[in-house]
Amino acid sequence: MYEGPVQDLIDELGRLPGVGPKSAQRIAFHLLATEPADIERLQQALQKVKEGVVFCDVCGNVSAETRCRICRDPKRDLALVCVVEEPKDVQAIERTREFKGRYHVLGGALDPLSGVGPDQLRIRQLLNRIGTATDGVDISEVIIATDPNTEGEATATYLVRMLRDFPGLSVTRLASGLPMGGDLEFADELTLGRALSGRRSM
Amino acid sequence: MYEGPVQDLIDELGRLPGVGPKSAQRIAFHLLATEPADIERLQQALQKVKEGVVFCDVCGNVSAETRCRICRDPKRDLALVCVVEEPKDVQAIERTREFKGRYHVLGGALDPLSGVGPDQLRIRQLLNRIGTATDGVDISEVIIATDPNTEGEATATYLVRMLRDFPGLSVTRLASGLPMGGDLEFADELTLGRALSGRRSM
Repeated sequence: MYEGPVQDLIDELGRLPGVGPKSAQRIAFHLLATEPADIERLQQALQKVKEGVVFCDVCGNVSAETRCRICRDPKRDLALVCVVEEPKDVQAIERTREFKGRYHVLGGALDPLSGVGPDQLRIRQLLNRIGTATDGVDISEVIIATDPNTEGEATATYLVRMLRDFPGLSVTRLASGLPMGGDLEFADELTLGRALSGRRSM
Repeated sequence: MYEGPVQDLIDELGRLPGVGPKSAQRIAFHLLATEPADIERLQQALQKVKEGVVFCDVCGNVSAETRCRICRDPKRDLALVCVVEEPKDVQAIERTREFKGRYHVLGGALDPLSGVGPDQLRIRQLLNRIGTATDGVDISEVIIATDPNTEGEATATYLVRMLRDFPGLSVTRLASGLPMGGDLEFADELTLGRALSGRRSM
């Protein structure tokens, strides 16, 4: 629709997830009026990500070094591992400030229809990690924190089956139930059913 | 929150208009999993826009050459000029396929509180353009198509005052009224009032 480089930029921006044609146009015209130095910073950030991002050898999270900040932290409980699908799930749990253990990032969830089987996820690395003591400390609890959807639940079930064979290892799953601050009457049946079956004495 | 280049990219993406922290994170992780060639195309598009975009000498629209496609088109009516605020308004009017004249892009609307006065817009160029015949054809009608908001209306009023002095020039404004496909009961008072006062015999 536009001529020359502006349309090229709109096309490229429109390929990004969550950026529709209108947003792409808005961003392109914003960049047109932006200082060259600001565009350069975005270009450099893209360049660094293109050259490759380092992932932590231990947990698989995105990292600046071969061991991420969390796996390097001596105050973290080595006996506790929380298994999540993606790096952004690590950030979500870190924001709660409730978890003092370490993580294991699977890199997704089981989804056979999209060709994601156990070999496409970092499940073998999780089993190796549980089988080997770190600094003399054995992993005593694995918290499965995959998403509460079909793929996440299937992954959790699969992991439970794989982890059954480790003696003395306790395997737990994040609680399902009503979200805090919500309204009971607006909860969907599945969530309310889970909240009922998972009720706790008080 | 994240370490290294991923966080830098999220920060830079988060500076773009309409991209919040969650979208920036989503786009960054999408780019992390993208082929380097695709990132390169985005980088090159940014590079070209950074190096400078050409604007049409005649109408001020973004262009690939010193004269844009519309101003070069011999089938366009030279006597008719539609005045708009931004290049995206040109695209909006082009999509209607109803207008066969040429455009004049002001580069914004009068907004004294943000420091945009007549000298910051391409108003002088518009007056020069109307005062000079192109290929022997005088401009006979100027359609003012600034946005129907406070700044756009103020700009329209200002332009009408400036254009009064040209003998034989007809100055028109886009009609205000009910949007097509809308519901009368949901129209705001201002729009419905305009639709009433602008009623046409049929």
